[in-house]
Amino acid sequence: MSALSDRLRPSSTFSVAEEVAPLLEQVRSDSPLIHCITNAVVTGFTANVLLATGAAPAMVDIVDESGMFAAVASGLLVNLGTPAPEQRAAAREAVAGATEAGTPWVLDPVAIGALPVRTALAHELVAERPSAIRGNASEILALAGISAGGRGVDATDTPDAAADAAASLAERFGSVVAVSGVVDLVTDGERVIRIANGDALLTRVTGGGCALGAVMAAFLGVARGTSVSTLTAVAAASLFYTVVAEQAATQAAGPGTFAVALLDALSSTTAEHIVRAARVEVFVA
Amino acid sequence: MSALSDRLRPSSTFSVAEEVAPLLEQVRSDSPLIHCITNAVVTGFTANVLLATGAAPAMVDIVDESGMFAAVASGLLVNLGTPAPEQRAAAREAVAGATEAGTPWVLDPVAIGALPVRTALAHELVAERPSAIRGNASEILALAGISAGGRGVDATDTPDAAADAAASLAERFGSVVAVSGVVDLVTDGERVIRIANGDALLTRVTGGGCALGAVMAAFLGVARGTSVSTLTAVAAASLFYTVVAEQAATQAAGPGTFAVALLDALSSTTAEHIVRAARVEVFVA
Amino acid sequence: MSALSDRLRPSSTFSVAEEVAPLLEQVRSDSPLIHCITNAVVTGFTANVLLATGAAPAMVDIVDESGMFAAVASGLLVNLGTPAPEQRAAAREAVAGATEAGTPWVLDPVAIGALPVRTALAHELVAERPSAIRGNASEILALAGISAGGRGVDATDTPDAAADAAASLAERFGSVVAVSGVVDLVTDGERVIRIANGDALLTRVTGGGCALGAVMAAFLGVARGTSVSTLTAVAAASLFYTVVAEQAATQAAGPGTFAVALLDALSSTTAEHIVRAARVEVFVA
Repeated sequence: MSALSDRLRPSSTFSVAEEVAPLLEQVRSDSPLIHCITNAVVTGFTANVLLATGAAPAMVDIVDESGMFAAVASGLLVNLGTPAPEQRAAAREAVAGATEAGTPWVLDPVAIGALPVRTALAHELVAERPSAIRGNASEILALAGISAGGRGVDATDTPDAAADAAASLAERFGSVVAVSGVVDLVTDGERVIRIANGDALLTRVTGGGCALGAVMAAFLGVARGTSVSTLTAVAAASLFYTVVAEQAATQAAGPGTFAVALLDALSSTTAEHIVRAARVEVFVA
Repeated sequence: MSALSDRLRPSSTFSVAEEVAPLLEQVRSDSPLIHCITNAVVTGFTANVLLATGAAPAMVDIVDESGMFAAVASGLLVNLGTPAPEQRAAAREAVAGATEAGTPWVLDPVAIGALPVRTALAHELVAERPSAIRGNASEILALAGISAGGRGVDATDTPDAAADAAASLAERFGSVVAVSGVVDLVTDGERVIRIANGDALLTRVTGGGCALGAVMAAFLGVARGTSVSTLTAVAAASLFYTVVAEQAATQAAGPGTFAVALLDALSSTTAEHIVRAARVEVFVA
Repeated sequence: MSALSDRLRPSSTFSVAEEVAPLLEQVRSDSPLIHCITNAVVTGFTANVLLATGAAPAMVDIVDESGMFAAVASGLLVNLGTPAPEQRAAAREAVAGATEAGTPWVLDPVAIGALPVRTALAHELVAERPSAIRGNASEILALAGISAGGRGVDATDTPDAAADAAASLAERFGSVVAVSGVVDLVTDGERVIRIANGDALLTRVTGGGCALGAVMAAFLGVARGTSVSTLTAVAAASLFYTVVAEQAATQAAGPGTFAVALLDALSSTTAEHIVRAARVEVFVA
């Protein structure tokens, strides 16, 4: 079988932008409870991104609490940025709880590749079939076993270079895979969505990428039990977040004011604006 | 004996607003050292709130340091938001050190109820008779044994619904109990203070409530050894913080700019403004 | 031998300000990977300061990852603000990895003196000969064995009062020692640089000092393998950071807006402006 990227043809039957409105509205009205197990650097920013979006964040990353909490939460994020021993055990417990209860969950394999503890944990957790996997190209390549990963948290490969690795992960684990970069790529192994929105300032704010994983969990939380696919929810979250980043950049004089403006814009940007600003391409195999 | 809420009558002999000036002035001039054991999401914001108010924050949450530090600090906050094992042990040690030295301390039983580890720890620590307990209505009800708690960090009950639970906790443990909500409620079991100041944006910033617990510890720190009661200091801290939030909201375009403006306003708001803006009712049994 | 401070004479042969330009340009173009092991309060702010400056931060503070990561990073910061057991072990591992690989590293002995766990660790780590040591005067005095330290994270002594202690540490461990205060002092034991730039608002933002240690690691990272001395790189980092703080203060209405403006200014301030604004004195023994 040839690689997915060779078989893709443009599709005009599916508009991600139009899927954003109902999901965003539901996040804002229902305030889904999002369980975050995330790294020590971005906890506050991630919680603020969720609150600004309309969701209710909760960081429950200790043993004997994370499993039961994942079962009652609307969505779960497991981010491996600073996986201390207690948090590793809590992540395993949370994934088991989410799986048992059917809670959608997102795996963010931060900086895997050369670092052995998180790499082993990422391979272990991905086998539990996350609803979605979010990372930069280097991380997705490393998770697919193709590369030793980047030099840390920043991508040294492009999302398109990771397209086949993403599709392979998607097929193998039944996950939607989102690769962040200048153009974001989202795939379920059969369809590929390219989102050209965003702003370089997102890479100058710590947690700019990590927080998107939490927004995906929120969108998955409200999509659960509806006819909206995981692919659609993940792509809609990415589109929402990157268009908001463009809005914020218009108010920013640098990375400090950008991060502040991003939180304001997450709370105020309308679905209508998302539709107008969207630069999305959809391909099918 | 009937519930406290049935026996209350309005009082005009006591003005919380006029008590704010000397306490705020003393925090700003003395810079009391406030020992924080708090959750991983809000550490930075809490420290910044204390610094902006005029206090000196220090996060000392490891075993073999927290006990001795609580003994020399002016005030202590124990917040149970992310109680990892080392932090649980450090919290116990800090409470013992504070009790031995007479350091006033505040317990914030974040998200207790259904989550077993923090719930057990909250019940253990409250028996050590904190100077003050701060929480939302669901948490106060859960600590009083009346409810299984909310779905996490956000309140699903109103402060007034928790008034009798708060009074019961106050009587049982000799603590002043502060219940955060649209109208905040502070009680020592005999008097009830209702503070109608504040802004909904406080609930859209992570740590908006947690940081108030730290401000209470600062006000308790400067009130210690004076004729100012614990009830007065806790209510004055709540009034100060919620009026400042109103000030900040006038400068805010959303949750991002609000959090920034809150820090500015904590540092600049005058006691005279607090008196003018206060919307406080006092009741006695 | 008389104390260093008695033997100093002004020098006009060395301009710190003119050394800033090439180092800053190289940080911005090379984006050196800076390994941070730092306290739980300031992780996000520290990462954002590094990103705004142009470096790539990574917090790797777990056992079995920190040693190998320190070996590939361009620079390492070890800050002892909240040294939980896992982080203590990871710090030892990182220092060993950095030493083996020749990675420059900065030790920030936060609040040492009375607190026994961090004090013992600081004395253990300083014996591994950090490239630079950064602290307030109380911390430097305590590390030199002269004082029991301040009451926590804020200095109760002035940098000039710690000049001889700093020089003694510099000679004993081959480290450049930077003492933060109203006038910063940087010494290698033979030369003393006094930097009068900065703004009091830096002391009202948590991590205002801690993040400077990370910026020093970034400047040391790009200076490595060049003819630029450790003294020059550390002084240039201090000068850059404190002039940027002055720039930020002109945009600030309080500590909230100051922290935001600081991140913007870290990203936009030019080397030319640093030269114009520098208030630096250099002395030689």
